Amino acid sequence: MTEVSEISSEHWDAWRSVLSMRRQLDLVLERRLQQMADISQSEFEVLLAVFQEPGGQLRGRQLGERLGWERSRVSHLITRMERRGLVARNECTVDLRGSWIVLTADGKRAVLGSMRDHAATIRRYFFDVLSDEELAVLATASNRIIEAIGATACDETLACDAEDAEAVPTSA
Amino acid sequence: MTEVSEISSEHWDAWRSVLSMRRQLDLVLERRLQQMADISQSEFEVLLAVFQEPGGQLRGRQLGERLGWERSRVSHLITRMERRGLVARNECTVDLRGSWIVLTADGKRAVLGSMRDHAATIRRYFFDVLSDEELAVLATASNRIIEAIGATACDETLACDAEDAEAVPTSA
Repeated sequence: MTEVSEISSEHWDAWRSVLSMRRQLDLVLERRLQQMADISQSEFEVLLAVFQEPGGQLRGRQLGERLGWERSRVSHLITRMERRGLVARNECTVDLRGSWIVLTADGKRAVLGSMRDHAATIRRYFFDVLSDEELAVLATASNRIIEAIGATACDETLACDAEDAEAVPTSA
Repeated sequence: MTEVSEISSEHWDAWRSVLSMRRQLDLVLERRLQQMADISQSEFEVLLAVFQEPGGQLRGRQLGERLGWERSRVSHLITRMERRGLVARNECTVDLRGSWIVLTADGKRAVLGSMRDHAATIRRYFFDVLSDEELAVLATASNRIIEAIGATACDETLACDAEDAEAVPTSA
């Protein structure tokens, strides 16, 4: 890779390893979900988040916060999932904070039919491959990065507006 | 999160931290690229890969291998980027291995206008936040995960066919 901004090649190697790891993990997780329930990883995450919510429903905004996604991404995906019959929107007429997202019978079947296998795949390629010490370093390092991003999400270099700031939760 | 497959809550916490970290990093990198050059992260990666290729051109298949993407994803993205005027396809009539992807003037401008800032953002939220020891652990752990996935990519549990096997390079 062309050297940019005086970052050492060892550092770039580490970055590329992390990028490549997440891609390979994504590929294998995505393929398993497709096989088990014909859903994408993003769809699985939405289904799981709503499924695990005690009331069984979430607003689009809450879903975006839970998953750390921009509002437009949540909105597009929910529309697609509604069309596919995995979720439904329950309009609430007494408040103006938007509709509730709930699972359809097909949506429940999809999450129930894939969550154990999904967890087993994560265990196989992540938990079983890493030592407890490595897992602890990964978690600590990840949390520090999240904090660093949160701390500067709205400073001058990002020049974000109020709406953008909402889309980047400072904790996740 | 509901307990699945007897994985401890500490392990799930570590997994969620890693997931959340990559989402926050993605959000901030994506936002910067949009601001700098009106391109997505995926588009940036394609532009950078072709830009850094000594001959300045890559076949779709090579691009998929470089980036660790499924062939269909490469194909859809290239079609979209061609429409946006960022890349062009050079047909080669003397062999049948498909067309070459090259950058247009706009594509070159986009990658040149964003690569330094992209590297600076990665440095700010990744290299500067982590110690050398943490970086080394992340790289080692990532490489071990990549190996584990590669080693079992075509065993019985994934039940993949020959074409799928091609889409999961054993090294990246």
